Formats: sequence, structure tokens, C-alpha cells
Amino acid sequence: MHSSPFISDVPVAEALQAWYDACTAAGCPDRVAADLVPLEDAAGRVTAEPVWATRSSPVSDVAAMDGIAVLARETHGATPTTPLHLGPESYVVVDTGDPMPDGFDAVVMREQVHYVGDDAEIRSAVPPYQHVRSIGEDISAGELLLPEGHRLRPVDLAAAAAAGATRVLVRRRPRVAVIPTGDEIVPIGSPVRRGEILDTNSLMLVAQAREVGCEAWATEIQPDDVERLSTAVREAAGSADLVIVIAGSSAGRDDYTARIVSELGVLAVHGVAVRPGHPVVLGAVDATPVVGVPGYPVSAALTFEIFVAPLLAALEGAAASQRPEVTARLARKLPSVVGMDDWVRVRLGSVGGQVVASPLPRGAGVLTSLVRADGLLLVPAGVEGHHAGEQVSVRLLRRLPEIERTIVAIGSHDLVIDVAATMLRGADPTLTLASSNVGSLGGLVALRDGLCHLAGSHLLHPATGEYTVPYLDEMMPERDLAVIRLVHRDQGLLVPPGNPLGITGLADLGERDLSYVNRQRGAGTRMLLDQELRRLEIDPATVSGYAREEPTHLAVAAAIAAGRADCGLGILAAARAFGLDFVPVAEEPYDLVVEASSLEDPLLAPLWELLKSADFHAEIAKLGGYNTTETGKRLR
Amino acid sequence: MHSSPFISDVPVAEALQAWYDACTAAGCPDRVAADLVPLEDAAGRVTAEPVWATRSSPVSDVAAMDGIAVLARETHGATPTTPLHLGPESYVVVDTGDPMPDGFDAVVMREQVHYVGDDAEIRSAVPPYQHVRSIGEDISAGELLLPEGHRLRPVDLAAAAAAGATRVLVRRRPRVAVIPTGDEIVPIGSPVRRGEILDTNSLMLVAQAREVGCEAWATEIQPDDVERLSTAVREAAGSADLVIVIAGSSAGRDDYTARIVSELGVLAVHGVAVRPGHPVVLGAVDATPVVGVPGYPVSAALTFEIFVAPLLAALEGAAASQRPEVTARLARKLPSVVGMDDWVRVRLGSVGGQVVASPLPRGAGVLTSLVRADGLLLVPAGVEGHHAGEQVSVRLLRRLPEIERTIVAIGSHDLVIDVAATMLRGADPTLTLASSNVGSLGGLVALRDGLCHLAGSHLLHPATGEYTVPYLDEMMPERDLAVIRLVHRDQGLLVPPGNPLGITGLADLGERDLSYVNRQRGAGTRMLLDQELRRLEIDPATVSGYAREEPTHLAVAAAIAAGRADCGLGILAAARAFGLDFVPVAEEPYDLVVEASSLEDPLLAPLWELLKSADFHAEIAKLGGYNTTETGKRLR
Repeated sequence: MHSSPFISDVPVAEALQAWYDACTAAGCPDRVAADLVPLEDAAGRVTAEPVWATRSSPVSDVAAMDGIAVLARETHGATPTTPLHLGPESYVVVDTGDPMPDGFDAVVMREQVHYVGDDAEIRSAVPPYQHVRSIGEDISAGELLLPEGHRLRPVDLAAAAAAGATRVLVRRRPRVAVIPTGDEIVPIGSPVRRGEILDTNSLMLVAQAREVGCEAWATEIQPDDVERLSTAVREAAGSADLVIVIAGSSAGRDDYTARIVSELGVLAVHGVAVRPGHPVVLGAVDATPVVGVPGYPVSAALTFEIFVAPLLAALEGAAASQRPEVTARLARKLPSVVGMDDWVRVRLGSVGGQVVASPLPRGAGVLTSLVRADGLLLVPAGVEGHHAGEQVSVRLLRRLPEIERTIVAIGSHDLVIDVAATMLRGADPTLTLASSNVGSLGGLVALRDGLCHLAGSHLLHPATGEYTVPYLDEMMPERDLAVIRLVHRDQGLLVPPGNPLGITGLADLGERDLSYVNRQRGAGTRMLLDQELRRLEIDPATVSGYAREEPTHLAVAAAIAAGRADCGLGILAAARAFGLDFVPVAEEPYDLVVEASSLEDPLLAPLWELLKSADFHAEIAKLGGYNTTETGKRLR
Repeated sequence: MHSSPFISDVPVAEALQAWYDACTAAGCPDRVAADLVPLEDAAGRVTAEPVWATRSSPVSDVAAMDGIAVLARETHGATPTTPLHLGPESYVVVDTGDPMPDGFDAVVMREQVHYVGDDAEIRSAVPPYQHVRSIGEDISAGELLLPEGHRLRPVDLAAAAAAGATRVLVRRRPRVAVIPTGDEIVPIGSPVRRGEILDTNSLMLVAQAREVGCEAWATEIQPDDVERLSTAVREAAGSADLVIVIAGSSAGRDDYTARIVSELGVLAVHGVAVRPGHPVVLGAVDATPVVGVPGYPVSAALTFEIFVAPLLAALEGAAASQRPEVTARLARKLPSVVGMDDWVRVRLGSVGGQVVASPLPRGAGVLTSLVRADGLLLVPAGVEGHHAGEQVSVRLLRRLPEIERTIVAIGSHDLVIDVAATMLRGADPTLTLASSNVGSLGGLVALRDGLCHLAGSHLLHPATGEYTVPYLDEMMPERDLAVIRLVHRDQGLLVPPGNPLGITGLADLGERDLSYVNRQRGAGTRMLLDQELRRLEIDPATVSGYAREEPTHLAVAAAIAAGRADCGLGILAAARAFGLDFVPVAEEPYDLVVEASSLEDPLLAPLWELLKSADFHAEIAKLGGYNTTETGKRLR
């Protein structure tokens, strides 16, 4: 069989079915073998046969209370006014759990017995079987205790033991071999030279396989050499129940995997109508399923979730763990390509009693989109996308109670927000402050639309020279909003280390041929630049690079560090992060805008406390470029 | 300090706070120590400090596609009709992920390049930075990647590696020592003599502790000896971060733990207003938290969930994992004691698009109530209970998608239902058939009220001599119901092994002084008995034991096996489970009643298939006492 040179667009369900069929045809086992293991080692394993009780629990009638065992009919006539004395032959002292002595059928609680000499005095008659646990009350011998294909939990182990088991037949953990490939890939911990890429994917895939209960390991990194890679795949197929080959992300590199799989065994699918994850390779070699995952990290992670995890669950004979779903309101418009299942990472927050989903960056290379994601939104192949405000169903990556303990901040980015997030979490691990960086104006729009708890803003109002507050009157005159000062901070020009061009300020943009890197429209920093250019009477059209927009301070710093621009406006902390020099231009306030009611919201209370704390001010001071004189002050 | 001889009723939140305060006062550390561990060993561990990026990803601008790197401004003018030739000095071939060569700022995809000799021909102009991933697109050096107190997932490890980390500072796994106590407790696997109890609790508690990420072990079983137990607690406190003492379930036994804790350290709480779990002991010894859990298995499991798990999470500096909740309709009335938090185990099913919760047996000794539970319903101390049909909030023990793949059967119990459940699950691990045994009439009522998918019934209609169908016309005349025959089965008298009293049939109940064990009203077997007694002209009032009701065939068998009765009506399989003899009395049909629409419901389709399969008939034949001639036949 020959590999096709083209990547096809097989729908996901079809691709999975074709893979399963190919595996069956290639002689791959349906299930991994089963082992009889002691109960204490069986937690998390999957039963390979039903567990039937061989023993009842309790094994006999037992006392359910501390007290005395009596014969119920001998207690007739006892009342508070006519107490009854039972002689020593008519009762037996019992503790909870003791077998009922022969000839007795009820228990009188210790607290209701008074001893008069050797006699027990009782003050009420009792019915038969009072405070007696019947044989088999919990488990009857012969009953079905646990089904086949059940992942064993702690209570299951205890019940199985009570039902007479000491060992259970469970599936062996599936073994997963991960083969990283590529001449440019180097192990984590080695020095990375230009053009080399760290092997973060095998670290992740091995951990993903272990998380779903497998034994997993990564082989050595294989160079782009068909022969060596073929040998590695064969070896792995001989020792594992499933082989993952991490291809480079290029089509050419994937073809290696597809070609090797088709030469050594059966290639079922090359290319699925899903993104990220499109160039996935599915097949079988030597009666072992093989999957080629794309090299982009988000693609690799999602390929595991969509294709590998279900097959591993099937090998264990268990249901694949499905993520719970939640209905959320989409924070903004989400276009999607028709013909492809589109897996969009989203942040979730509970604002005003409703769950809100904000899409994260969609690039397959942006692993942090998955780190920051609270959920996955699948836009199916047949859907063109969603409108802002639409109700969508999101698969949860975090649990809802955690999401409900998340303060959602949308707006301008500032490292002080990160510091606050860190300190809040350090004091209370249940509290998360999650920030999305869309610029000051974007944050105010999100607040207006009920998509966040707070908006970080440093938006200069040119007509008044004031910051932020005038915009609130324009955008949301009817809303009762509060504005809390976070900090004053220095804005300045970020320039390469040592400031080789000797840049002294924004006036240089009008006088010299400097290339500039800009922030997006709606960003406070962009407003500041435009205001300053007007003041300096510089025409933006004459500024080289004015049209190139970056979404954050750090992205501006990165562009300058990469040599793509000579300067850009930003904050000192961003310059420090990339080892750049900083030419101060202005001091500006950075404020938090919230609904006035949020000042009383228990979720946000720790934040308001934090703003007043000396520890917080000290941490900000360490960053440099900030002034905390007015931190925590309510401006409106 | 002396222990109080009384068990108090401290509300849960107060008890937890008192325990935390006592631990702090006793010098217990707030957090376990932190270790720097390699990323590959860090999955599931909790960060002890935030992870800040020390490296950007990508580390430089890189090609995002396979193709050629070009200088965008040199491509101006290229169109499909006026292709442009770039000489070898004007382009560089790049693969995805390659660093952008100096002096080039855009990539043209491989598919859009034609080579003419050494020249590259392109047919459209490209903007700067097309198909270029910017330095820091994923991660910018200096940004906050992961907060403190974050449990590391596979993607986090990969992102941390990409951000320059090779090791992370994480909390050590908390160490938990479990001390089983009691003269009557014997290890799992040992022969159990009369009055002895298997140590299933330490197996469960150790597994629970491991499930939440701890290192855990059980010590030897300690006898009821204050001195030896004191030594064991001290030793455990010296090597563990938390000590669990499993008390016997009696008040007297608990006092041992409370007394020891107060003598060796600080006793904070003895007795909490929660059930199951009331007599819990909370304190600290030698700067180590100690908890005494009650011996009843459900109490032990819930005490772990309510008290131990949150403290262990706090020691790791993480948020305790909170169970997701779902709103469900309560299947029947649920009374509850005021003044106690009441944790009720419930089965869940999705019937007619609504989640329905059926309370399970509430005894603290019924561990299978927890095994079978899909959720926990907390009835708070201030609430008297709930009405049938009320909407309640349930904490999920299974995921909702699994619950939605559950066929809910309520009605009469028959082992053939268990066999069907086993075979359905064996063929499809995602499919569960969950049955609750409430008798035939109870099942029909549940079906009427929309609480189940199917009702198992063998309800004799005395006036017509027919089974089940006449009741449907009486109870639900307006409903479109289908009746499917499951089996015919033998009913008979269960009698002790060897039938020592020589019982020959129900007529003996009228002629001899036999003690009988009955089924509850509404059970088909009870209807059969009453019908037969009428036919034989036996007055029920003369039958000894007629008033004692058991809920299942197996419970009847258990009562006879325990010597509490001479005989009872039931099925052969129940006799076999308890090694009893069986005196046949009648053959009766056992049918499944469903909404007619259920015959087309994809969820139930595998069941209808199964009823027709020869394998299923063969399995039933193995049970004995069944006839499958009409199995699967639709009667109505």
C-alpha cells in the first residue's frame, strides 16, 4: 500500500471508524489482557469481568447499636410508668456490630437501660428486629456488585472486599510509546541553538497518557531519516499497545509518518477535517495502532483528546471519560471555517449569574491558549461560526465551582494585574483572577456587555485630558460604575539594549527615519501616542510602522527585541522582560472600572483588601516604573 | 485537657474552623514542604510558587509554513497575470518552525511557488509578516505563566518547558497514615469468624487519600487498648502529615480516640451535626492533625470527603476539588432530621430529558448505597426534607454524559435484569442498566411519574388472573405503553438446606406452625402469596411472620439462611445464592413495561437487541428456574 501525497479531509467520526476498522483488520486486539490483582492495587483500574458477591454483608444479623440484646416478646408491657426487669438470662450486653446472640431478636439502646443489681430495667417494649442489621442488608451473596468495564473507585474496593473478594480481574494498563521526531528537536534541558525546538510534546503526551491511566514512555528523539524512524516504529509497536509518532508540523514531515505506516502496515487516514490537528495520521503496524500527531503543540494535545484517548479507553474496555458541558454566552463573534470541526479554546467566567465564554487565540502553536483555557468550544464542520452573545455549549477543562471563584478582568494589560493575581491566589488557592488583554476600550465594551467583573483602563480622553472617567459617561451614562485607581505608571519608548540609535523621545519620530511598532486601536497606549503625535504635530502617516499593531506591551517589546522595529511605546516592565532600554515619555494612571455593586461582592472583596495592603505596594515597587500613592483610591 | 464523655452536635463549618484553629494553635504547618522536581515528575503536583516565563516562545520570528522566505516589498507587483521571478539571492527555502533568515520578513507557501531554473516564480504580492510567527507569540519572557497553588496538567508541563523551566517548585505529596482499630477487626483475606469484621475501611481510606494525590498507608490493626493505640497515634503523627484513626462505630469506641487525642494533644471537636458521620473526632497530636472516623463504612467515606479532603488540599495549598452539581427531580419524598446535615446517596437517570434522583438506602452501614450512587444530595441541617417531585441540587459522583447513557429500571428485582446489565455493559462500556428494587407496583408508579425508562413487573391481577397488563389500564389508561416479556420463572418456597421441616408447599402454612418471611406490599411475590392463600382459604392473620416484610428475594433468602424464618416465597436464583433448598409453587411471567416510544429510543435499542440474542437465552438458562420461550415478545 502506498501513502497518498495529499492530505485528505475526512470527518472526525469517519476517521475514527476507519482507524478502528483498520486496526481490527490488522489484528490489533480489541482489549488489553487482564490481570488478577490484589484489591489494594486495583484503584483506578477497569474490571475485566463483573464482580459478583460471594459473601453477604453483614454475614449474620448483628446489633446496630450498643446496648442489650433481648427477645422482643419478653419486653411486652414495659412502659415508663411500669418498668420491666429482665433477669441476667433474658439479655446479653452487645456492642454495635456484634452478632445477635442465639434466641434474641432485638436490641435496647445502652442509654435506655438501667441496671438494678444484675437485672436490666427497661421502660418501653420493643418490636422484633429493633436496632438489628439483617444479614445481607448491605450485600447479598449472589448479587451483582460491579459491572465489567467499571473503573474502580475506593468505595468499590471496600465493597468488593466486604463481598468476599481479595483480588479482582482488571485490565492491564495500556502501554503507550511516544516517538519524538525531527532533526531540529532537542531534549528539554539542553541548550537551544537558533532553529532548534524543545521537545515539549513528548513530555505532554506521556503525561496525557498517564493521566488516563496508561503506562507511557518517550523514546529517543528520531532524526528525519526514514530507515531509522521505521526501525523505531517497529520496535515501539513490539512493546506498546499504541504508538504515537510526533511528526514535525510540516506536510513534508507528516508524509514520513504516513509513508512509514503504509509501508510497514496499514495507513487508514491521513488528514482529518478538524483544526487544530488537521494532518493527523491514523493506522496500524504489527497489530498495534499507530497515530501520527502534528508537531504544533495545541494540535498534538487535541489529537490526543479526540483520537487517542477514546482508543485507549476502548483498549481498557471502559467508557472514555467525557468532559461535562456547560452553556455559556459567547463574549464575541466567532467566525469558523465551514467543512472543518473547529476546536476553540475559551476562558469562562461567571458574571452576573451567567457563564461567559471568551475565545482565546486560535493558532495551533499557541500552547498557552490551552493552559489558560477553561473549556473547549467545538464549532462543528457544518457551522459557519457564532454571533456575539449567542448561547454555546462548552466542554469544561476546569470545574464549574472553580470557574465561579474566578474574577474576570478584561482590558488593558499591566503586570500589576499579574502580581495581584499571584498574591490573591497565594492567600486563597480557590480564588483566581483571570485577565484577557484586549486594550482599555475593549475592556470597557466588555464591562458594558456584562462579560467581565472589571476592566483595566488607562484611556486618555483628548478633549478633557482626563483618563477613563469621561468615556464611562459617554458609553454607559445610565450605569452605576465605580472607578478604583490601581497605579500610576511610566510610559516610555522601548528601545534596543544600549539605545544604539540614541532615541530621546517621541519627537524623534517626526525628525528621524525610525521604524515604530504600534499598539492596536482602542489600546490606552495607542491613545497616548496619538495624543502626543498631535501635540508634537507629527502626521501618523509619516511614522514608519505606524500601521503594524501588536496586542500587548510584551508583544511590542518582543518585536523590538527581534529587530523588527527601532522603538515602540510601552511600560518599563515590558522593557525589562526583554532586556530592552526604556526612554520615559509620560506618567499615566491605570484604573479598574467595576459595577458599583462589585464593591460589595464577596468574590471581589479580597481584591479590594489587597489594594490597601503594604505587601502589595512593596511588590509593585519591585517592578520599577510604578507609583502607588493613590492605589486603592475610589475616584468615582 | 479532658475529653467530654458526650458527643456534641457542632455544625460542619464550625467544626472545620475549630479543627483548623486547633491545628494552628498546636503548631501544625499550614502547608507541606516544597520540592524542586523535574517537569516529567510534576504532573498532578501543586505549584508552590508562580511560574514566570524566563524564555519567549517562539524564541525568534519563525516561518509558520513550508515555503520560501522573502522580503515583502520585493514581491510588489506580482499577480497571476504578471508573475514575478525572484533570484536565488532574494529568497530562502524554509520549513515550518525555521527561524526567519536575516533580511526576510514574509513567507510564501510552498504550493504557491514555481521554480524556473534557480528563480522562484510567485503569482501574488505578500504583506510583511505573512506566515511568520512572531517571537513571543505563545509566551513572552517575563509573563506570569502559572499561578501558585495550581495543580499541574500535561499542557502546563509543556508550556513551562517552552517557557524555559526544567524543574518546578511543587508541594510534596501530603503523607497520610491510617490506623485501623478494634479487637473484632481482621485483615482482608483472613478467614472471618463469627463476630469478626473485615478491615475494609483502611483499604478504602488509603485509596481515597491516594486519589486526592497523597502518599498513604495503613498501619497494623490496633486492639482496643488505650496504651497501644496511644503509641500507634504518636508514631503515625511522627511520620505523617495527617493521621486517620478508624474507630469502631460505637460511642464507647470513639471515646478511645477522643480520649487519646485529648491526652496526647488537643481535642477540638467530638461529634458533628452531620449524618452519616456524626461521631467524628477532630484534633491534633504532636503538631499533626488527627481525625477519628466512625467505623460504619459510609460514615468513614463521607468523613473523608467532608473533613479530610479539604484539609489535605489546604496542606498542598490547592483548592479542594469540588464536585460539579446538577439539578434533579426528586423521585420520592425524602424526610430528614432537622439539626443535622443529611448526606443522602441518590441514583440519577435522565428520563424524558430530565435528570431524576432516586434516594438510596440511608443506613451508614450500607456501603453499596455509595457504590451505586451517582450523586450526593445534601439536606442541610435547617431543612426538614423534600417533597416528591421537588427540584434539588445534587453533587455528582459520576459524570453527566455517563448518567445520560444509563437505562433506569425501577420495579421488581430479578437476576435476569442483572444478567442483562452485565451483557449490555460487556458489549458497550458506555451503557449502564441501573435497577432499583421497589417491587412491581412501585415500578409501575415510577413509570407513571416519569422516573424511569422501564418497570420490571410480575403483578398478578386477581380478578382476571392475568399479569401486569390489567394494572396498566387501571393506572395509566391514557398512556401509550408497551409490554415486553422478559422471562417466565419459577416461584417457590425457599427453605433451609435439606428442607429439614419437609415443607411441600404453601398449603403447609395453613396446616402447620411454620414461621414465614414475607415481601412488602406492592411486590408481585406478595400478590402471588395473597392470591394463593385465598385459593387455599388460609387466613393471612394465622400465618406467623406474615407481617415481617423484606424488600427483595435475596433479603428473604438471607432471613431464612439466618434462621429467622422457616420459609418464604421467592425465586430459585435467590435460594441458590444463599445455599437454600427450593420447593416450586408456580410459574409466572416477568415483563418489562415501557413507554411505546422507548421501542424506538436509541438508548434502549441494545436492550431490545439483547432480548432476542441466543447468548442471552443461554446465560439465563445457566441460572436455572427460568423459561425463555417468550423472551422478547411484545405483549402489548
